[in-house]
Amino acid sequence: MATAGKIIKCKAAVAWEPNKPLVIEEIEVAPPQANEVRIKIVATGVCHTDLYHLFEGMHEDGFPAVLGHEGAGIVESVGPGVTEFQPGDKVIPLFISQCNDCQYCKSPKTNQCEKGWASDRLGEMAPLDSRFTCKGKKVLQFMGTSTFSEYTVVNQMAVAKIDPAAPLEKVCLLGCGVCTGYGAAVNTAKVEPGSTCAVFGLGAVGLAAVMGCQAAGAKKIIAVDINPDKFEKAKVFGATDFVNSKDHSKPINQVIAEMSNGGVDFSLECTGKVDVMRSALEACRKGWGVSVIVGWTDVDFSARPIQLISGKTWKGSLFGGFKSKDGVPQMVKAYLDKKVKLDEFITHKMTLAQVNDAIELMKHGQCIRTVLSVSPQ
Amino acid sequence: MATAGKIIKCKAAVAWEPNKPLVIEEIEVAPPQANEVRIKIVATGVCHTDLYHLFEGMHEDGFPAVLGHEGAGIVESVGPGVTEFQPGDKVIPLFISQCNDCQYCKSPKTNQCEKGWASDRLGEMAPLDSRFTCKGKKVLQFMGTSTFSEYTVVNQMAVAKIDPAAPLEKVCLLGCGVCTGYGAAVNTAKVEPGSTCAVFGLGAVGLAAVMGCQAAGAKKIIAVDINPDKFEKAKVFGATDFVNSKDHSKPINQVIAEMSNGGVDFSLECTGKVDVMRSALEACRKGWGVSVIVGWTDVDFSARPIQLISGKTWKGSLFGGFKSKDGVPQMVKAYLDKKVKLDEFITHKMTLAQVNDAIELMKHGQCIRTVLSVSPQ
Repeated sequence: MATAGKIIKCKAAVAWEPNKPLVIEEIEVAPPQANEVRIKIVATGVCHTDLYHLFEGMHEDGFPAVLGHEGAGIVESVGPGVTEFQPGDKVIPLFISQCNDCQYCKSPKTNQCEKGWASDRLGEMAPLDSRFTCKGKKVLQFMGTSTFSEYTVVNQMAVAKIDPAAPLEKVCLLGCGVCTGYGAAVNTAKVEPGSTCAVFGLGAVGLAAVMGCQAAGAKKIIAVDINPDKFEKAKVFGATDFVNSKDHSKPINQVIAEMSNGGVDFSLECTGKVDVMRSALEACRKGWGVSVIVGWTDVDFSARPIQLISGKTWKGSLFGGFKSKDGVPQMVKAYLDKKVKLDEFITHKMTLAQVNDAIELMKHGQCIRTVLSVSPQ
Repeated sequence: MATAGKIIKCKAAVAWEPNKPLVIEEIEVAPPQANEVRIKIVATGVCHTDLYHLFEGMHEDGFPAVLGHEGAGIVESVGPGVTEFQPGDKVIPLFISQCNDCQYCKSPKTNQCEKGWASDRLGEMAPLDSRFTCKGKKVLQFMGTSTFSEYTVVNQMAVAKIDPAAPLEKVCLLGCGVCTGYGAAVNTAKVEPGSTCAVFGLGAVGLAAVMGCQAAGAKKIIAVDINPDKFEKAKVFGATDFVNSKDHSKPINQVIAEMSNGGVDFSLECTGKVDVMRSALEACRKGWGVSVIVGWTDVDFSARPIQLISGKTWKGSLFGGFKSKDGVPQMVKAYLDKKVKLDEFITHKMTLAQVNDAIELMKHGQCIRTVLSVSPQ
C-alpha cells in the first residue's frame, strides 16, 4: 500500500478527559514497529466498557485516549517480523492478547495471557506505549486496541485473522460483547445439557450469555432484567422464562428458586452491579450451583459464607474465557455457519462522527448494540 | 442388651444457655424410633463449631442442647426397620446425613443431603426432634448428634459403620475436623500433583488441609498462621513453608505471591474470619487459582470483582465434600492403613467431666484437639 511505512493522518474520536464528549480529531498513526500490525478499522461496536472508562473508572492516567475495543478491519501494513498477516487480511483486534508463550497461554485452564497491556495497566485500561499522537500530544490506545479510529496499530499477538467472507460490520461484535457473554456460559460456567440457568442483565453481553446457555443445551433459561422491553429480544436468543425484578417484593433469588425447584444450576451476572452479583449467587442451587461474574466494576462484592459452604462455586469470566486468537476466528466461522447469531444484537447503525449519539443511546439503555462504520472498505 | 427398648439415664454435658459453662447433668435418652440407632459414645473431640454455637452463634432457639459432634461409639440398640446396624457395631455419628435417595445424594457433585437437620434448622444448628430430656425439659441434639453424652440417638442415614479394629478415641476426629480439612483439599479444591498451596489457619482443620494437600501431591505447601508455635506441627503434616502474618507489614497475599511465582494454585481458608477469606482468594494465582472457604462464620465476606474475573474460583466446603456414610469408613481405613494421620492431632486427653476445661483450652488456642473419653468401652 502507498501508506506503508509512513505516518497515516486519519480521523479518530479522542477522549481528552473523563466525563466529556469525545472529539473527532485528526490524529497521526505511526507505522507498525516489529511484530505489529496496522489495521484500517471498518466497523466498531460501542460497548459498555467504553462508557465505564469515560464516566465511571475515569482513571486520570488513562487519558487522553482513543476508546473503542470491539472492532473489525483490514490489515493496511505490517511491521518487521510479522509473517502471519498480510495487507488485505480481514482481522479483529483483541483486547486480550494470546502470545502462546507465557505460562497462562500454555495452560488450557485460562485465556489470561500475561503479555498484554492488562498485566501492567489494568487500572488505567491503556498501555503507556501508543502509536497515536494528536496536536503534538501522545494519545493512549484504550485496552490496547482503539477502534474508534480509522487506523490503529496492534501487536500481532493481539490480532485474530478471520474468514475473508466475514462481514466486518457484523463480526466486529465478536471483538468483545458477544464472545464475552457466550463464552461465559459455554467456557466458564460450562453450562450442561438439560440444566436450568438464569441470566441477570439483558444487554448485549447478557443476551449473548442466553445464546450460550441455549447452545450448551440448557432446558430452562430465566432472563432477568428491570426493563421488560428486553424480554422479547431475549426470547430470540433462547430465553424460556422472564423475570422483571421490579415486579416482585420478595428477594429475586426466592422468585428464581420457586421457578427452578430450589435454584438454578448456573447463573450469569451481566450487569456489573455488586447487588446483582450477590443475587445471582443466591439464585443458584445449593450443592452444585455455579455463578459467574461477567460484568465489571471496581467495588467490593459480598455474600454470606454459607452461600459457598453450601456447595456453590463463584467464578468470573473475561472475554468469555476464549483464548483470543484461537477463539475469535472460530466464533466468526460459527456465525458464517449460522450457529451463532450476530445481526439480532444490532439495533442501530451510525458513523464514527455520531459516536457521542451512540454513547448517549447506550447510557440510557436505548440500544442493544450500535455499530459505527469507521472507514470505507 | 438389657437397656434395649428402655429409657437410659446417663451423663451428658448440657448447654442450658449461650455463653455459660456446660453443666454435667443426668439426662434421659429415649429408645431409638423407626430407622434410628442408639449409640454409646466412647470418645469425642471438641471442635470449634461447638464453641461457635456457645459463644458466637448463640441462637436462642438452639438451646438447651447437648453439644459435641465429633464422636465415635458403639451401637447399643436399634429401632424398627434398621438392618444395617447391630448392637456392638463401632460407629461414627454424622452431622451430615446421607440418605442416598435425595437429588443431592444421587449427584456425584455434592455431599449436601437434603434430609438432615441442616435443611430446616441451619441457623439454630439443632433439629427440633430430640430423644433427650433433662429435668422434664426437652434438650436439643446439637447438629443432630450430641456426642457430649454417654448415649445418643441418631437416624441411620447419619451413622457410619466403621472397621471393628478402629480405636474409637482416635477415629472420633473423623467425625468432623480431620475429614473437613482433608476433604477440602482433596475433594473440594481438588489439589493437583506438583501444585503450590497455601493453608490459612493451623488448627485441626487447617492441619488436616495441609495433610490433604500433601496426599494430593502438592510440591509446595505454605502454612499461614499468626501463632508460630503451630509451624512445627504443620511440618509434621507436610507443610514446606511457613508464614507468620504478624512478621510482615505488606499484605499477606503479596508475601505469598513472592513465594509462589505470582500466587498459589490452591488456597484453603480454615479460620472462619472474613478478612482471611479475602486474603486467601487474593493469594491465589490469576488464571486458575482456586480458593476454598472452610471456616464458618455468619458475616459477609467480600472481594473485588477483578479477583474472580481474572480467572480465580471461589468455593466452599462442608465436611470436606465427603458423602458422609461413604467417606468416613474410607477415612477410617486410610488411618488403619497409615495413609492418614490422626494421633498427631491429639494434644490433650480428658474426660467428659472436664469438658469445660477442654473448651477453655480451645478458646485460647492452647490445643489442637482434646479428646474426651465419655463412656467406657
